[in-house]
Amino acid sequence: MKKHNFFAGPAVLPEAVKKQAGEAALSLDEMGGLSILEISHRSTFFSDVMEEAQSLVKELLGLGDDFDVMFLTGGASSQFYMVPLNILGSNESAAFVDTGTWSTKAIKEAHRYGNISIIADSKDKNFSYIPKDYDIPTDLRYLHLTSNNTIYGTQLKSLPETNVPIVCDMSSDIFSRKIDPSRYDIIYAGAQKNLGPAGTTIVITRKGILGKTDRDIPTMLDYQTHINKGSMFNTPPVYPVYVCYLTLKWLKELGGVENMAEKNHEKGHLLYDEIDRNPCFEGTVNKEDRSLMNACFLLKDSSKDDIFLKMCDDAGIMGIKGHRSVGGFRASIYNALSKESVQVLVDVMKAFEAKNG
Amino acid sequence: MKKHNFFAGPAVLPEAVKKQAGEAALSLDEMGGLSILEISHRSTFFSDVMEEAQSLVKELLGLGDDFDVMFLTGGASSQFYMVPLNILGSNESAAFVDTGTWSTKAIKEAHRYGNISIIADSKDKNFSYIPKDYDIPTDLRYLHLTSNNTIYGTQLKSLPETNVPIVCDMSSDIFSRKIDPSRYDIIYAGAQKNLGPAGTTIVITRKGILGKTDRDIPTMLDYQTHINKGSMFNTPPVYPVYVCYLTLKWLKELGGVENMAEKNHEKGHLLYDEIDRNPCFEGTVNKEDRSLMNACFLLKDSSKDDIFLKMCDDAGIMGIKGHRSVGGFRASIYNALSKESVQVLVDVMKAFEAKNG
Repeated sequence: MKKHNFFAGPAVLPEAVKKQAGEAALSLDEMGGLSILEISHRSTFFSDVMEEAQSLVKELLGLGDDFDVMFLTGGASSQFYMVPLNILGSNESAAFVDTGTWSTKAIKEAHRYGNISIIADSKDKNFSYIPKDYDIPTDLRYLHLTSNNTIYGTQLKSLPETNVPIVCDMSSDIFSRKIDPSRYDIIYAGAQKNLGPAGTTIVITRKGILGKTDRDIPTMLDYQTHINKGSMFNTPPVYPVYVCYLTLKWLKELGGVENMAEKNHEKGHLLYDEIDRNPCFEGTVNKEDRSLMNACFLLKDSSKDDIFLKMCDDAGIMGIKGHRSVGGFRASIYNALSKESVQVLVDVMKAFEAKNG
Repeated sequence: MKKHNFFAGPAVLPEAVKKQAGEAALSLDEMGGLSILEISHRSTFFSDVMEEAQSLVKELLGLGDDFDVMFLTGGASSQFYMVPLNILGSNESAAFVDTGTWSTKAIKEAHRYGNISIIADSKDKNFSYIPKDYDIPTDLRYLHLTSNNTIYGTQLKSLPETNVPIVCDMSSDIFSRKIDPSRYDIIYAGAQKNLGPAGTTIVITRKGILGKTDRDIPTMLDYQTHINKGSMFNTPPVYPVYVCYLTLKWLKELGGVENMAEKNHEKGHLLYDEIDRNPCFEGTVNKEDRSLMNACFLLKDSSKDDIFLKMCDDAGIMGIKGHRSVGGFRASIYNALSKESVQVLVDVMKAFEAKNG
C-alpha cells in the first residue's frame, strides 16, 4: 500500500530525489561505481555538487552577490548560538519575537552574547497565533524571527515594518514561497523539512556583516571560515548535501518557489477547508496565522483520537499524531508532499465524520 | 572494472554495508517503504538504531559503564575546541604532542581555554615519525594525542607511560585495533575513515569528568546535553548514523577489532614489504611508526609519478595520490579495504618496476 508521509521532520522527499539518492548510495557512475558514501569530498564530482547546491540556493531564493551560502552541520539548534556569537557585539542589542519552542530556545542561547529582549510573544494562547503590531526598537543589531513554527502550526505571513535587519529561522518553510532578500542579514534552516535529509543546515549571510564583534571565535564556529572555503574547510556531510542538491534541482525543474507556493496554497486550502467544514474537527491556530507547512487540528471529542489514528494508519497515512505541546493531530504538508496525499487525509476525515459524526 | 578505493576519507565502506545503505535510502521495509531519508528520528526504528549503534561502539571498544558514547556532528575539527571547552578549566593545563596537521589544529583551538603546552613534536622531519621519550608533567588535566596521522602516515604504536588522563583523536584508526579504555578520558573520531560516511562524529567521554569548569557552555556544545538525550537532543544526522550502525554490525560479525587488527597487519605488511623490496619506491615514514591505515610512499624518481598514477588508474585504483604536504602516494587501507585491493596495488608496483626499474 502506498504510504503518505506527514512526518514533521525529517520529512517527505520527492520520489525522483529518493530514487537518485538511493542509486548514488549503491553506486555512482561518475565515480566508477563507488558509492557516494565512500568518495573524497575533494573529488571533482562532489566539489561540483557543493558549488552547484550553493548556487541553486541563491538562484531559487533570488539572492544576489551580496549573500554567501553555507552548508554546515549541527542543525538550526547550533545557529541559535552561532548567529549572536558571529554578529552580536557584547554591547549591542537583539530583539526576539517568541512564537514557541524553537524561538524560545534561540532566545535562551543568545542571552550570553549581548542585550536580548523579547518584544512580543504569543505564550498567552499556547503560541496559537503570530504576534502583530508590536514596537520594534530602532537601535537593534537585528530582529530575530521564526518564519514557521513546526510545533504550533503558525506561520509568519508578512514581515513587520522595520528598517532593522532581520535574522530568520526558516527551517520549516524555506523554499515554500518567495522571500524578499533585502530584509535579511541572516537566514538559516535545517535541511530536514523542505530540503533534504537530516545532517546539514543552510546558513545564508549578508556580505559585510562578519568580523565586527572583536570576539575570539573558534575556527569551526566562525562563518568566515566556511565562506572562505566554500563549506569545505573540513569534511562536509557529503551525502546530506548531495540529497539537498538533488531536491534543489527538482525544485528548479518544477518552476521554483513561486510554482511551489501555488501548490502549497492549494494543498493548504484543501486541508484547512475540510478542518473548517467537518463538524468533528477544529483547527488550533488563529485562522490568518495558519501554517501552509504544518496544519494542527483536534477532534472535538478527543476520546476518539485513537479511532481516527487507526483510520489514518489503515489508509497509509504516517506521522499524523500531534506534538505533545498541542495534542491532537498535525499534518506536515511540505513541498514534496503531493496533493493526492492531502486528499487521502481529507477522505479519511470525511469517512470519520460519516462513522462517528 | 572493479574499483579499488584507496581514498583517505571519506573512504571505502564494506560491500554489504553499501548494499544495505543504498536499499534503505530507496525504501525501508520497517517503515512501510518510506526512505530512511524521510522518516522521523523519533520513530522506533531510528531510536533503536541510535541506541544499538552506541552500544556496539561500547562493546567493540571494550568500554564499560564508566563511559558515554555520543554521535555528534561537526567533525573532529569541532572536537578541537569542544574538548577543552567542556573539560579544561581556565587555570588548568593540557599538553599536546604535535604529530602534524590535525594535532596542530587541535592545539590552535585549545589555546583559548586553558594553559596549553606542546611537550613533543616531529616538525623537524616533516612529521615523519612519532616523538617518544618526552617528559610528561604530572599536573595536567589531560594529555592530547592523535593516534593516527592520516596525512603523514604515522601511527602511535603504544601510549606513553603516564598517569595523566589521555584525550585522543582516533579519527583515522578507531576500530582498527584493541585499545585500553582505562587510559582515556575522551576519545573522538570523525566517522568517515573506518566507520561510515561523512556527517557524524563519535565522542566518548568518561563519566564524571563533565560540569567542572564553571564555564557557560552553549547547550549544543555541552556534552552533557547530548549524553542526557542519547544524542537525540536535536535532530541527529539520521543517515550517517544509520550507516555507522551497519558498519559496526559488520565489524562485530567479522569478529570485532581483534580480528580486524590481524587483517590490518596482513594488509600493511603486504604493502610495506613491497615498498621496501621494490627498488623504485621508498617509504616516507620512520619504519617503527608506519601507519597500518595510511601508507605514504614515494617514487625515487618523482618525474615518473604520472606514469605510476596512470598505471594505478588503469588497474582501477582510486585515491592514491599523496597529500600535498608529503607528495608522492598514499594508500589508505582502512578496515573495509580488502587484501585483494592491496594486492592489486602491489602488482601495479611490481609492473612499474618491470617497465621502469
